[in-house]
Amino acid sequence: MAKERRQQIVEAAARIFNEQGYHRASMAEIASAVGMLKGSLYYYFQSKDELLFEVILTPLQKLVDALESVGRSELPATEAVRQAIRRHVVMSAEYYPTLAVIAQERFDFLGEPYRSRIMALHRRYRQLWLDLLRRGAADGQLRGDLDPSLATFAILGMCNWMHRWYRPDGPASAEAIADAFASLVLHGLRASGAAPGPAADGQGPETDGARP
Amino acid sequence: MAKERRQQIVEAAARIFNEQGYHRASMAEIASAVGMLKGSLYYYFQSKDELLFEVILTPLQKLVDALESVGRSELPATEAVRQAIRRHVVMSAEYYPTLAVIAQERFDFLGEPYRSRIMALHRRYRQLWLDLLRRGAADGQLRGDLDPSLATFAILGMCNWMHRWYRPDGPASAEAIADAFASLVLHGLRASGAAPGPAADGQGPETDGARP
Repeated sequence: MAKERRQQIVEAAARIFNEQGYHRASMAEIASAVGMLKGSLYYYFQSKDELLFEVILTPLQKLVDALESVGRSELPATEAVRQAIRRHVVMSAEYYPTLAVIAQERFDFLGEPYRSRIMALHRRYRQLWLDLLRRGAADGQLRGDLDPSLATFAILGMCNWMHRWYRPDGPASAEAIADAFASLVLHGLRASGAAPGPAADGQGPETDGARP
Repeated sequence: MAKERRQQIVEAAARIFNEQGYHRASMAEIASAVGMLKGSLYYYFQSKDELLFEVILTPLQKLVDALESVGRSELPATEAVRQAIRRHVVMSAEYYPTLAVIAQERFDFLGEPYRSRIMALHRRYRQLWLDLLRRGAADGQLRGDLDPSLATFAILGMCNWMHRWYRPDGPASAEAIADAFASLVLHGLRASGAAPGPAADGQGPETDGARP
């Protein structure tokens, strides 16, 4: 019962953190959203920090786990990238609005030990992306001329920015978004050997960015 | 003199809004950063809302102007996309941390008339991107099989996410970031006729996303 109650609180908090931002959200309002007095809420969560931590820990850990499992797979890097993007996008929709909270907040204000654990998961997620893109470049599946850190930031930005425009009842399904993003990224990341030829503006991948 | 003083306040506010987020930032702290008493600050700006509006109006308007001028140009769509990304990225660096504030805040809390004006600029910027991508698809320079709204969100996400990782003293220059992003996006958006042939995973652009 207590577990179920905690879960109700976590879901209400995710919604309120998303709507108002963490700093404006009050424990009183979260308590009221689940029909509780503020004092009773503190029986479940000692602080707003702890509550934010609980809100984001599970989906963030799942995101990391999903990318670890894609990374460990024997899939070609192009297909691994496609699946990794899909999981990020689909999970953002599934955990809406929780992953919006994650994308929106910066966590540098969080007290310890919460801050360190969240930062470690963020770092781990970025590192897994980097590893995947480097492996793909090393085995010739992905372009080797793009800085993998910048490509990682580009992909994370694309996916995380969903928090600003995605709505569960919006025109595009999570699957359609994932397909579009993966397609955009893969045509971008594909090794020049795999997508050869000068392009419509007369430049091949090799000279990209050399223009003033 | 008053104009110079206003500019000093705007710059201090941009830095503090970026470091702490709008909601945690206090007028007292902003005043103190420019060696003023809080009461004197209100002589220049009537509210924190007005100050935030002043912080973001100029760079946001410049971003819109830049994209309008790229859109009006006779450039092929691929080159226009490249330049539009470059301007967004370079301007984000030039106006750092102001554009970080823009990317970070949601503005739905802003009082009128500030909220409407900011929202209108955001909408206009998105619309200009949409127009550019649609024109490119119509004249065969860009792929026609990607939803232009989703491609717009992908590009905006990529660029706006810079607020989470870009630092003026970081390893990548704004130009290097712009080149990498433009290259990634263009290889993704390029028309299938321009970047033909089955890719490394055996799928051409036409069948992208058809995989389960």
